[in-house]
Amino acid sequence: MQVAFVLFPGLTVLDMMGPFEVLAFVPGVETVLVAEKPGPVVSEKDSLVLQAGAGFAEVTRPDVVVVPGGPGQADQMADGPLHQWLRSVDRTATWTTSVCTGSLILAAAGLLQGRRATTHWLAKDQLPQFGVTPATERVVFDGHYVTAAGVSSGIDMALTLVGRIAGDRAAQSRQLSIEYAPEPPYDAGSPETAPVEVVADLVRRRDEILKPRAT
Amino acid sequence: MQVAFVLFPGLTVLDMMGPFEVLAFVPGVETVLVAEKPGPVVSEKDSLVLQAGAGFAEVTRPDVVVVPGGPGQADQMADGPLHQWLRSVDRTATWTTSVCTGSLILAAAGLLQGRRATTHWLAKDQLPQFGVTPATERVVFDGHYVTAAGVSSGIDMALTLVGRIAGDRAAQSRQLSIEYAPEPPYDAGSPETAPVEVVADLVRRRDEILKPRAT
Repeated sequence: MQVAFVLFPGLTVLDMMGPFEVLAFVPGVETVLVAEKPGPVVSEKDSLVLQAGAGFAEVTRPDVVVVPGGPGQADQMADGPLHQWLRSVDRTATWTTSVCTGSLILAAAGLLQGRRATTHWLAKDQLPQFGVTPATERVVFDGHYVTAAGVSSGIDMALTLVGRIAGDRAAQSRQLSIEYAPEPPYDAGSPETAPVEVVADLVRRRDEILKPRAT
Repeated sequence: MQVAFVLFPGLTVLDMMGPFEVLAFVPGVETVLVAEKPGPVVSEKDSLVLQAGAGFAEVTRPDVVVVPGGPGQADQMADGPLHQWLRSVDRTATWTTSVCTGSLILAAAGLLQGRRATTHWLAKDQLPQFGVTPATERVVFDGHYVTAAGVSSGIDMALTLVGRIAGDRAAQSRQLSIEYAPEPPYDAGSPETAPVEVVADLVRRRDEILKPRAT
């Protein structure tokens, strides 16, 4: 079973690294980091650079696709190589998945039309323009599409997915391996529970957070 | 404030990616991925390669040091460039931190002597040989050392640390930004709660999990 993690400039690496850590060690899984071309891809921070091991042309039938989000998502909304590749591999993939604003890319590629999906809480109002119904769950299954909320939700998404793919015991083994017994020091992980002023500050800086840096 | 994330071959990338995502966007923070030499570093999976932006010689006074673990940790236990660098930067660092079996490297470098610390649950019994008292908390502060339990605990560690460095509001803002309102699909994140056979299987495969692949 091949799991392909999509890279593009300006991605949020934690979006794909949670799922990577969970999925990559499931017996029988082979992983590939794929981008338009093989080679270095600069993330949302210049200091953090990943290597794409393969270009789109080399990865034609992944069983699972994971699309991360991040500030670079805004540059991936127009039709082009990534959308074409996503539409192509989606035809044969068992699961097409996203974390954070990665679902906006899937939506813009036309893959989530008529579906329920989620994304980062700051970007949820962008889903309906693509014919997508925003859902309230942290991890949303609709057909063979699985979308997860912001950044850290990719861990929950991947554990749920491993349960479906390889069974509860395999998923529990991965959860125990990464010692995922979370103890957040604050109850500020969603706009419903975070202090009002913290929410308001992020809403005010929304464009700066969701869009690419002017470089 | 410079935060240095240590890379070595065979590291578990999620160990440092949780803290990276939390710390890198705190106002005033500058990040660097540092290894013995700048250039590509292959993680625990050949498909996942990070770029070290700097070598040890170029990073002499980081304010915060984050040491990840992973199967490659076993190759970093002998005195050498990493230990020498850690002992040197620890003298001036505000916080020296680790995630997962990264604490074993700090311990082997002589930095945790007489301290309380934690590590991945499968490796806790390795701490006493370095004069370290294993602690039961998920995130352990002792002096300017902060050690976290297995892999995913780095997120909790970094949020706690940001609270100390920049205040509760800054930490809550990072938690909300990464939508860290965890919903693990199973209650299997610690050996106390996971099914007995899942724990027994990992204990049985412990050497294979903690030690480098024979390559």
